[in-house]
Amino acid sequence: MNDPKYTGQEFKVIGSRVKRPDGIDKVTGRARYGADMNAPGQLVALMLRSPHAHARIKKIDISKAEKLPGVKAVITAADLPDLTEGNAGLFDTLENSMARDRALYDGHAVAGVAAIDKSTAKKALKLIKVTYEKLPHVTDVDDALEDDAPIIQPRYATEGQHGNLINKGEFGQGDIDQGFAEADVIVERSYKTGQTHQGYIEPHACLASVSPDGTGELWVTTQGHYSYRNTCAQLLGMDIAKLKVTSSEIGGGFGGKTHVWMEPIALALSRKANRPVKMVMSREEVFKASGPTCSTSMEIKIGAKKDGTIVAARAECRYMNGAFPGMWGTLGGMTAFACYSIPNNKAIGVNVLCNRPKVAAYRAPSAPMMAFGVESTIDQLSKELGIDPVELRLKNVAREGTQAPYGPVWGPIGIEPTLEAVRDHPHMKAKLGKNQGRGVACGFWFNIGGQTCSDLNIGPDGTVNLTVGTIDVGGARASLAMIAAEELGITYEDVKVNIGDTSSLGHNDTTEGSRGTFSSGMAAIFAARKAVDVLKERAAKMWQIPVESVIWEDGSARANGKEHSNLSPLTLKDIAKKAGSTGGPIAGHHEATAEGAGVSFASHIVDVEVDPETGKTQILRYTVVQDAGKAIHPDYVEGQFQGAAAQGIGWALNEEYIYGKDGRLQNSGFLDYRIPVCSDLPSIDTKILEIPNPGHPYGIRGVGETSIVPPLGAIGNAVSNAVGVRMYEVPMSPPRILKALDEAGV
Amino acid sequence: MNDPKYTGQEFKVIGSRVKRPDGIDKVTGRARYGADMNAPGQLVALMLRSPHAHARIKKIDISKAEKLPGVKAVITAADLPDLTEGNAGLFDTLENSMARDRALYDGHAVAGVAAIDKSTAKKALKLIKVTYEKLPHVTDVDDALEDDAPIIQPRYATEGQHGNLINKGEFGQGDIDQGFAEADVIVERSYKTGQTHQGYIEPHACLASVSPDGTGELWVTTQGHYSYRNTCAQLLGMDIAKLKVTSSEIGGGFGGKTHVWMEPIALALSRKANRPVKMVMSREEVFKASGPTCSTSMEIKIGAKKDGTIVAARAECRYMNGAFPGMWGTLGGMTAFACYSIPNNKAIGVNVLCNRPKVAAYRAPSAPMMAFGVESTIDQLSKELGIDPVELRLKNVAREGTQAPYGPVWGPIGIEPTLEAVRDHPHMKAKLGKNQGRGVACGFWFNIGGQTCSDLNIGPDGTVNLTVGTIDVGGARASLAMIAAEELGITYEDVKVNIGDTSSLGHNDTTEGSRGTFSSGMAAIFAARKAVDVLKERAAKMWQIPVESVIWEDGSARANGKEHSNLSPLTLKDIAKKAGSTGGPIAGHHEATAEGAGVSFASHIVDVEVDPETGKTQILRYTVVQDAGKAIHPDYVEGQFQGAAAQGIGWALNEEYIYGKDGRLQNSGFLDYRIPVCSDLPSIDTKILEIPNPGHPYGIRGVGETSIVPPLGAIGNAVSNAVGVRMYEVPMSPPRILKALDEAGV
Repeated sequence: MNDPKYTGQEFKVIGSRVKRPDGIDKVTGRARYGADMNAPGQLVALMLRSPHAHARIKKIDISKAEKLPGVKAVITAADLPDLTEGNAGLFDTLENSMARDRALYDGHAVAGVAAIDKSTAKKALKLIKVTYEKLPHVTDVDDALEDDAPIIQPRYATEGQHGNLINKGEFGQGDIDQGFAEADVIVERSYKTGQTHQGYIEPHACLASVSPDGTGELWVTTQGHYSYRNTCAQLLGMDIAKLKVTSSEIGGGFGGKTHVWMEPIALALSRKANRPVKMVMSREEVFKASGPTCSTSMEIKIGAKKDGTIVAARAECRYMNGAFPGMWGTLGGMTAFACYSIPNNKAIGVNVLCNRPKVAAYRAPSAPMMAFGVESTIDQLSKELGIDPVELRLKNVAREGTQAPYGPVWGPIGIEPTLEAVRDHPHMKAKLGKNQGRGVACGFWFNIGGQTCSDLNIGPDGTVNLTVGTIDVGGARASLAMIAAEELGITYEDVKVNIGDTSSLGHNDTTEGSRGTFSSGMAAIFAARKAVDVLKERAAKMWQIPVESVIWEDGSARANGKEHSNLSPLTLKDIAKKAGSTGGPIAGHHEATAEGAGVSFASHIVDVEVDPETGKTQILRYTVVQDAGKAIHPDYVEGQFQGAAAQGIGWALNEEYIYGKDGRLQNSGFLDYRIPVCSDLPSIDTKILEIPNPGHPYGIRGVGETSIVPPLGAIGNAVSNAVGVRMYEVPMSPPRILKALDEAGV
Repeated sequence: MNDPKYTGQEFKVIGSRVKRPDGIDKVTGRARYGADMNAPGQLVALMLRSPHAHARIKKIDISKAEKLPGVKAVITAADLPDLTEGNAGLFDTLENSMARDRALYDGHAVAGVAAIDKSTAKKALKLIKVTYEKLPHVTDVDDALEDDAPIIQPRYATEGQHGNLINKGEFGQGDIDQGFAEADVIVERSYKTGQTHQGYIEPHACLASVSPDGTGELWVTTQGHYSYRNTCAQLLGMDIAKLKVTSSEIGGGFGGKTHVWMEPIALALSRKANRPVKMVMSREEVFKASGPTCSTSMEIKIGAKKDGTIVAARAECRYMNGAFPGMWGTLGGMTAFACYSIPNNKAIGVNVLCNRPKVAAYRAPSAPMMAFGVESTIDQLSKELGIDPVELRLKNVAREGTQAPYGPVWGPIGIEPTLEAVRDHPHMKAKLGKNQGRGVACGFWFNIGGQTCSDLNIGPDGTVNLTVGTIDVGGARASLAMIAAEELGITYEDVKVNIGDTSSLGHNDTTEGSRGTFSSGMAAIFAARKAVDVLKERAAKMWQIPVESVIWEDGSARANGKEHSNLSPLTLKDIAKKAGSTGGPIAGHHEATAEGAGVSFASHIVDVEVDPETGKTQILRYTVVQDAGKAIHPDYVEGQFQGAAAQGIGWALNEEYIYGKDGRLQNSGFLDYRIPVCSDLPSIDTKILEIPNPGHPYGIRGVGETSIVPPLGAIGNAVSNAVGVRMYEVPMSPPRILKALDEAGV
């Protein structure tokens, strides 16, 4: 698939494996993360958080805390703007940052303190007296829809449906009843998935500074500093242009840093204290009060003809949104059957509120859960039909021209090639031993475009600064430098990519939806092409010939035509050196709402061994096949495949939020919330397929998210094959596997 | 002159006195200056400096310092690149930052140390053993041209002229001998001026960080972060795009922060230690080893007809450049007779080396000294001719169409209007008392344009970020916000101006030559006009009408033509809100080498009282009349006039570098180097004349420098009128006045 005949283009820099630009600084500790910025006179801020899952806040007495020497500001909801009349999303965001009349989950902030040091701030927290009235709580998504469940957000309750049911996203085609009526075999099963956290290494951290003149600055670890800017400015009544947000290096985000958490409070504390304020979450706070995923509960029903033709499919999945409404179920509904071509299908994603933290995105948000159900069900269907599970998938696979269940007609897509690659992969032929099993699953994820800006400036020595506004969460700086070098015809080493602060570029959407390299890559291409136009003009001026006679080739201006055969090519460096005297600095800019984002598909193979005595599952071998579109930097693409699979493995096997009956989180630390460590993972094999995205000049697709979608299903299938008992709940932790074995009498 | 009929334009925002955007942060301490940035793991760097005016460095033993626990890097010239073969200016810059084989002045750096804290760094300095061989030195500009003077820089010595004479800049017109032959009266005098320092409040300070991957960052107080970037990168062999320089708030520069001093060494120390390095000069270091002005010594000869027509003028002025060659004499030569129209004139500026620190620019560099000589001589001529000194100047004044002595033919210029305003000013008619005298003098200064970039980004709420690359040394952020607001038709408060770091814009020349508001103002206008084009396109899209039917008026798009009378205007905010769905963020960019800079003239009046017993001169009254072109923000313009006059007053009366016979500086602190304090100054009156510069869309001229040119001459004339004895040397400090009175037998 790397054949340029297939991709239609020959590249010089794109597709090579150049050194990563941020590597040395990250391993030597020079890179500055969210907690690594300081300002003279800064204060330390801490939050007081609710110890109750659900409680009315009857009174908060901050008087003693305010009097403590060294305390410079104490803030409660009373100090914050009243957004009752405004945008509901902003209202929710502010209420999630600081509880108003009720604490809605264990860890919900109720007050913030800024003091001269951490110990003073801690003392101040102890001096704040909150009078709570405990209220009934609910933390399970199914319990939340019981009749007697407490209503989490009465203002979102709709007449005629359960008060915790926010909305449903329904997608599908055909006649679902008719479809099942035509089926020879129907498999219908229920599944549950636990709530997981993105588990980024770096906790949320910021340095906020608001001046009495109405300007402010925020240094913060984020996936979207423009979105943080816009949100915080609106929450605090500031002009957007006057709040400058600078993104730190980011120690992981995976969706969890697409949303503000304590940042508005840090800014509000700074404004009140008139001092810079630093706020860094503890790991416990990250677990309790940043945005984990939805836990889910679902029913999947799939019907097929004897020959394996799937004629009907139905999915209904309840997504636990935490205490504030989101669109998670809607997203999940869109993804349910996207890998397949099924004439009659319906997928329903239901958004439900519980007394848990507000949910945020996590890498292909909402898709892994739905895929767990769908891919587990298809595997069971294949057993009932006696058809190889890969062949069954291939028989029903979506192709170019298939209409997706959520609407669009697919262009060139990669699900069939990935399944073919899986079928033909040596992994599929490898022998399995005792207690070992193999599983396969597919996954789909969207890519998005969105608002994107890019400035490309050529320095006086011909080295280039490319400034973008999309946070680099996984190698974008390398990819974008390669793209700019490719367009300009210079070396990768001559391009330095910077993530601009919010004052230096127009609005950029958040790095999410696998849009970073797609969108900023597109902006970089167009900015570079504009710079090439200027370079040609300057060469024409230097040569005193018409610009129409100048072409750009291999990083040089060349004079076209026999009459100019005496003119030697001028390199970019030659032209850059003279820029001051030929008209000024040479630049290219591009602002656009990027369109043409592709979609992405993956198929995974996993071999596991389950210890029947302990219930522990070991991943023996793992292969990711994914369509990447044109792979700009294959190392990073492979890294994304591996990272996504690793996170999926953790989700499948061990990770979950464990709530007690008191509604409090019992495992808010990495000792008890078990993410995979090195010994849990094999080296994950990868195979990149390059089905070009026709919407991008180079055929780029987003690659970062899709491969977190298949692991839950693939491992569920593998474990079931290994132990002979179907697993219906994620994580498939040792106790849960032992229980399943026990129940099945194995 | 503020009549729009005269300036040709009506303005809404321009010309008003809006609040300064940096005021609150500066007075509350929130603004971050050079020493206010910190990085995790940073080291403190100090310099070891030569105690000798001139000495061979026979050996530097750093071994003990390197072994001191806590010392992370020690650097001498041996650690720095050998630039012998390259550009002479870069070679000099590096040698000035760190002595090579010889220390060339008292305070010349010979080694740098980076350690974990200041006390360790101090201890390390004491452990460095430098073996010096003292060499003969010279610190006076005239002594330096004596036959037996030591040659400071043998590599610059030219066969056939004194080894310390670097070059001469000669300018003039006509036949000078013929001219003097025609004169009825000739006055010829010699003058000297002392070496002064800009006296900025903030010492040089930076935080440097260079990574082993070849990238680096520099936070620094500077007037030109791009120039610092380019110079440091070239000195250290880095790619220009890979060194990101961020300018701090600046606590004064006045030309002294146009050049790198210890910054390359801070970067080199960081590179060697692989840690961020902070370096802050002490006041003593600022005096000894940053760039003060030239001391000078000159002869001025002017001849006139009895009717006051000046027929010939000659100036020869020796400018002491310190230990490294500059072009200071050349600049001075250009300015000597620029205020006048004299048929035969010659001005020679001579650049001479001495064992003093490398000279840097100081507000209208080189002009005040020459003006002291010329304006003092003209006053003496007026006495000999019996013509009022203002009338004598008016009789010989340069006008539109006059060819300047250095070449150009003047366009509309302001010297005649300023002299007329002086003549007609009530100040000229005020009575003077005993020991009081009045003086008048004129001054000229260039303005420059140069490379300039500007990005204008409109945020989703319609507030605007304007990012420029010219450091704001005196109010540019206010002026530029006003300009952008004027062009866009919005309020000043809706525009936030930012000084971008070097990665976010193309190259910008340094803020010098009064170019900041002129050049960035022009770039802001053109960037805003491009943004207006985009706004009109978006409005057309929203209305679904052709863009040709859209006009921009008063901050709104209006649909032109009767057929669109149903369409209400769309404000900038309306359009900005929809930008994401109409094509993406709205921006305007401009890069150019700005041309069309004007020139600037001023005439000053000063009344003084000299205490004949102590020799102390008190400034009683001071009036500045200056042509500002269009005054964007009159408060700031007046502030520039006043600040420049205040600095000129200090120069005229008290400030000077005092060197001992040992060649060491004896007054490297503000206790002994006496700049004016509040009680030394009256409230300085100002009169702004607005003769528009035809080279700028708004008629802007630079305003910041010119008014430091007349004070030396004006005060010289006033003091001479007060005491009846002519002063030939600046500063006219009490001892020098007493000496002059004594010698004259007064």
